[in-house]
Amino acid sequence: MAELKIETSEATEIIDISKQINAAIPASFSNGICHLFCPHTSAAITVTEKMDPDVKHDILAKLDKLIPNRESYYLHDGGNSAAHIKAMLVGSSLSIPIKNGNLDLGPWQGVCLCEFDGPRARKVKVICQKLEE
Amino acid sequence: MAELKIETSEATEIIDISKQINAAIPASFSNGICHLFCPHTSAAITVTEKMDPDVKHDILAKLDKLIPNRESYYLHDGGNSAAHIKAMLVGSSLSIPIKNGNLDLGPWQGVCLCEFDGPRARKVKVICQKLEE
Amino acid sequence: MAELKIETSEATEIIDISKQINAAIPASFSNGICHLFCPHTSAAITVTEKMDPDVKHDILAKLDKLIPNRESYYLHDGGNSAAHIKAMLVGSSLSIPIKNGNLDLGPWQGVCLCEFDGPRARKVKVICQKLEE
Repeated sequence: MAELKIETSEATEIIDISKQINAAIPASFSNGICHLFCPHTSAAITVTEKMDPDVKHDILAKLDKLIPNRESYYLHDGGNSAAHIKAMLVGSSLSIPIKNGNLDLGPWQGVCLCEFDGPRARKVKVICQKLEE
Repeated sequence: MAELKIETSEATEIIDISKQINAAIPASFSNGICHLFCPHTSAAITVTEKMDPDVKHDILAKLDKLIPNRESYYLHDGGNSAAHIKAMLVGSSLSIPIKNGNLDLGPWQGVCLCEFDGPRARKVKVICQKLEE
Repeated sequence: MAELKIETSEATEIIDISKQINAAIPASFSNGICHLFCPHTSAAITVTEKMDPDVKHDILAKLDKLIPNRESYYLHDGGNSAAHIKAMLVGSSLSIPIKNGNLDLGPWQGVCLCEFDGPRARKVKVICQKLEE
């Protein structure tokens, strides 16, 4: 198992970490499956469009509209209920095929860390399994 | 690994693909786990109610209300930011138990492809692992 | 494979089931991966903040605001479209690392069953895989 470290720099941010994940896949794993886990409750991992930064903007803007930082009915003292709700909806676990030693993503896809309560030091756990040929 | 091909016919659509997945599970895999991955950024995979088409209608209608195609603050040129946001929230990866050679789903559940920017030709990747008995 | 049984007691409820899952991990699985599957269409599983009950309140309150039980455009006879939509967005499948025989969660994380149409008897399927050392 590998553990990636990602330093985020904004309060909310979507960061493509596909390259770090590919670098963590052992060279001997030609074909297999890569399990990714985000051990945080106010950050998440997802697969989304990697090419156009405007897509990341639009995702974060829509999430902020649906789940604003303040609501009259929030009870949690920490003030980051919105971050927890966003992280839960985006998700903490992914399982992605490995092909020829790299994530077998679609041409537009990147695996992204979603920061919802930053900036912070975040981690992503990477577990790779070989498939029987 | 198998790759399913699904031709969608609507702009937004939920299609039960459980039968195609079951057909892709090797006959020798009595018990195991089936990993599914959707390699698109404007389509997704999920598990939901397969019996009543009205549930699919209600899901798509609610998602359209929450995440309409046009918002004053969307920046992405492609015009399909809503499809990307919906796909990210629904998700691209599932891991489902295999029992007696088929997906071990609940009685109401179907594995569904969610088209959010169709019609298009879509794929779903299927990786099955045997469990040690 | 193990199957957890959880009796929910509210219409909507978030229940930390991490202890039951840890108890279902075989003692021989020092390091590995734990696949969890929720075989229901109106309940879901997720990883979220386990410490403060107010976070669970805020999550459920926000989901109710975004996806209320009644909408003029819902067609489904069962009256529980909201529960299906919430369950689909929260998700039915998780894959979590196992370390030293337990779920390798972050310090704030708990694996939670999300009831959206209770009270009911719910199940969660648990499949553990050893990793090659």
